[in-house]
Amino acid sequence: MNPFIQSKVMTAEDVANRMPLQGTIATSGFTPAGYPKVIPKAYAARVEKEKLAGKNPWFNLYTGASTGDELDGVLARTGCMKKRLPFQSTPDVRNRINSGEIDFVDMHLSHVAHYIRDGILDPIDVTIVEAVDVSSDGRIWLTTSSGMSRTYLHHAKEIYIELNSRPPIELKGFHDLTAPEQPPHGRSVPISRVDDRIGRPYVVVEPDRIKGIVLTDLDDSSGEFKAPDENSVLIAQHILEFILFEIKKDRIPKEYLPFQSGVGNVANAVLSCIAKDSRFHEIEMWTEVLQDSIFDILEVGKLRCASTSALTFSKAGHKKFLDDINELRYKFIIRPQEISNHPALVRSLGIIAMNTALEADIYGNVNSTHVAGTGMMNGIGGSGDFARNAYVSIFMAPSIAKGGAISAFVPMVSHVDHTEHDTQIIVSEQGLADIRGLAPKKRSEVIIEKCVHPTYKDAMREYTKDSFATAKTKHTPHNLHKVFDWHIKLIETGSMK
Amino acid sequence: MNPFIQSKVMTAEDVANRMPLQGTIATSGFTPAGYPKVIPKAYAARVEKEKLAGKNPWFNLYTGASTGDELDGVLARTGCMKKRLPFQSTPDVRNRINSGEIDFVDMHLSHVAHYIRDGILDPIDVTIVEAVDVSSDGRIWLTTSSGMSRTYLHHAKEIYIELNSRPPIELKGFHDLTAPEQPPHGRSVPISRVDDRIGRPYVVVEPDRIKGIVLTDLDDSSGEFKAPDENSVLIAQHILEFILFEIKKDRIPKEYLPFQSGVGNVANAVLSCIAKDSRFHEIEMWTEVLQDSIFDILEVGKLRCASTSALTFSKAGHKKFLDDINELRYKFIIRPQEISNHPALVRSLGIIAMNTALEADIYGNVNSTHVAGTGMMNGIGGSGDFARNAYVSIFMAPSIAKGGAISAFVPMVSHVDHTEHDTQIIVSEQGLADIRGLAPKKRSEVIIEKCVHPTYKDAMREYTKDSFATAKTKHTPHNLHKVFDWHIKLIETGSMK
Repeated sequence: MNPFIQSKVMTAEDVANRMPLQGTIATSGFTPAGYPKVIPKAYAARVEKEKLAGKNPWFNLYTGASTGDELDGVLARTGCMKKRLPFQSTPDVRNRINSGEIDFVDMHLSHVAHYIRDGILDPIDVTIVEAVDVSSDGRIWLTTSSGMSRTYLHHAKEIYIELNSRPPIELKGFHDLTAPEQPPHGRSVPISRVDDRIGRPYVVVEPDRIKGIVLTDLDDSSGEFKAPDENSVLIAQHILEFILFEIKKDRIPKEYLPFQSGVGNVANAVLSCIAKDSRFHEIEMWTEVLQDSIFDILEVGKLRCASTSALTFSKAGHKKFLDDINELRYKFIIRPQEISNHPALVRSLGIIAMNTALEADIYGNVNSTHVAGTGMMNGIGGSGDFARNAYVSIFMAPSIAKGGAISAFVPMVSHVDHTEHDTQIIVSEQGLADIRGLAPKKRSEVIIEKCVHPTYKDAMREYTKDSFATAKTKHTPHNLHKVFDWHIKLIETGSMK
Repeated sequence: MNPFIQSKVMTAEDVANRMPLQGTIATSGFTPAGYPKVIPKAYAARVEKEKLAGKNPWFNLYTGASTGDELDGVLARTGCMKKRLPFQSTPDVRNRINSGEIDFVDMHLSHVAHYIRDGILDPIDVTIVEAVDVSSDGRIWLTTSSGMSRTYLHHAKEIYIELNSRPPIELKGFHDLTAPEQPPHGRSVPISRVDDRIGRPYVVVEPDRIKGIVLTDLDDSSGEFKAPDENSVLIAQHILEFILFEIKKDRIPKEYLPFQSGVGNVANAVLSCIAKDSRFHEIEMWTEVLQDSIFDILEVGKLRCASTSALTFSKAGHKKFLDDINELRYKFIIRPQEISNHPALVRSLGIIAMNTALEADIYGNVNSTHVAGTGMMNGIGGSGDFARNAYVSIFMAPSIAKGGAISAFVPMVSHVDHTEHDTQIIVSEQGLADIRGLAPKKRSEVIIEKCVHPTYKDAMREYTKDSFATAKTKHTPHNLHKVFDWHIKLIETGSMK
């Protein structure tokens, strides 16, 4: 530990006592990797104490994306979280968003840095990041995620650091930190290969802005890795067949295009299937989160390189990462979310984007965020950054949920995150619908035929027939009287059936 | 006229007789400038004759964007147009889309070239473009628009040209024609200033693929230019005040950012107001269509340069263009729509995008295309290409239409073209709502307060109150029972009141 760090060391309670009781806190952390783990708890304790003392504490929380309960959970439970952005997946935050207590700003992850730089969002009072090392000249080496940290550090009035000795010091060098040149006359980001490095492995700040360093020794609280279930494997198989078909048709080059893969079971299943399938050879990943499934690809020698904004591994995955860290330094690259999710790079690199839909409708509109139109699940995250500009954009969803009480395919989605203009391929375990270049009515035929669960097919066909008969104009037939009947039934009876 | 042209000259009827009776026709033309004007009429006559003779002719029509009645109208009226893309604004096409006769694929204009190159759309049998000159080595100089012509020429089995002597031969040199490098490993498009030239002023094809040239002498049938009405000027004033405020806040640089401006009255009013307002100095345009209002800016010496995909002038505007054509050669640059609308360039140049909304809802979702959820107006055009990636994205709409029978602001839009994540500023003649960084409920307060017409304000407030009270989850409160009541009333009674 260098003398600079020694001079800044304090306890989490010290930091909590110096933080403002009303203001905006920005932190490291991305889906959930590399977030601060001890200062939030101490700050929450202070906030609760001051509330009991009759004061009126409140704070906004800005992060990269979702974080752990040690940050999001403890802070939400104070009841003093006023605004939260840009993404979350913690039950106590979600519940308070949906009760109307917390104002949640559900943003494209690539937009956050611009909004911070331009002062569109409330200014940041305190930025807290997790780091593996800090130098006396103000260089900060981040841990398992990059997310928004660079921008939040640049724009904070005061900086606190959780110096965590648990993540390997060898993370120094994994990051590639920079920001795009700004308009007017900003040149395009000069990345044309997945592993191009254009920035620095650390963030630099004025050393006197670092007001305190708290020493920790804690893992990210990532969940256990689950083996893909049967439906996820079926979805993955449909996607693999589609990619092979597109290669045969010369629409995807033989060396493939870089893959982006959302978070979760289905995304993991796709990568596991690529690892096992002898028809697939070396691939590249350009994505925002790497999960355990990357090791399936690595173990069979099929990963050329992977660009991400976070490493989100289970305990077992983390061990594999540690075992091979010196080799993986040349395979993995961790970027700010403004770069990993940059629409221009997604377009020019020609990404194959694979994201999960909460529900999709018969015309190809996709809902990624809202349950029955009004309740927030997690947020749009990076799905819009990727899907809108991808070379091939795939949305995936099991056709039914809750034992069949919910159909993921509905007459009209109750909230639109990705429009009919942006969706290309929609897949369920039933099959794959390629809706590129189709007019709405043709799309509805393909989606019903290929994706809808058999128990909902007749009802869906009846809806389209009725809509075509009753709509005065028939480009996108709908019966506005009945369009949300399935959702209303779900709200009122617990089932769409 | 060079010998090569002479050797290819034929009549429109000759061309019509050589064209297939079933297949895909692609043409030049963008909103409506530079489209073929005589071959379509001859082909329509042949199609109708063959239909009467018991044959089964049909064709798909691909263009850059909207065209004139001489192309879209005459072909639609044959009743044999099967598929149309990517945009249209001709009554006979619109009506047949909405009756269910024509399959319309409503696409982002920047996506078309990719879909053509990759063979996702039906292959092109015949491409017809309008040109001012053709050389014996296969160079083709386009007329008043670029649109999709370069790509359609490259991918056509057979090429026919309408050589039009009416547009000035000096158009040679206005175009900058190229395509982005393709994935994988395509580098970004190397444009960092609005007037950077990176391509050729002509398209090159193998000369023997040019099967015939028809000589014409006809103007584009563009409408008369209307002076902005009172509401358009009010909307424009709100936008100007906003831009000046953003400059004061250091969010827009003092030299501004390039402006993109949609088609129509309101867009024209904004440019006219910039021309007249002494607080505004020189500007740059990065847009897809230049209309007469550009001359207001030029005449006061306030235009530095303008990049577009089409020149759509009235007769009076066209005269101004001719008068100054040798100077304008250094101010205007005409690009393929794949470049003018390229999301990466829109992001890196930092565009101020201004587009018209058909309707917007209280949470900031925007409908640009569908009347009452089912009927197509014109299409999304370039609005998604620009709005999604702009530095500042502004949607504009008069708060009411049809003498107050329709409110442009509704509880939930009946079709989503731009999601809540993409919209930033919404303006009506009533005022301007800045919804950046706001949670949904805050957005609804600002939009109702600033934009909704007074006659609809109470009803809207009642809707939000009822939604908040009845929704089980309250991130985006809605009452799904009532969400489309205004639209249903409109369909059934002709008024939302």
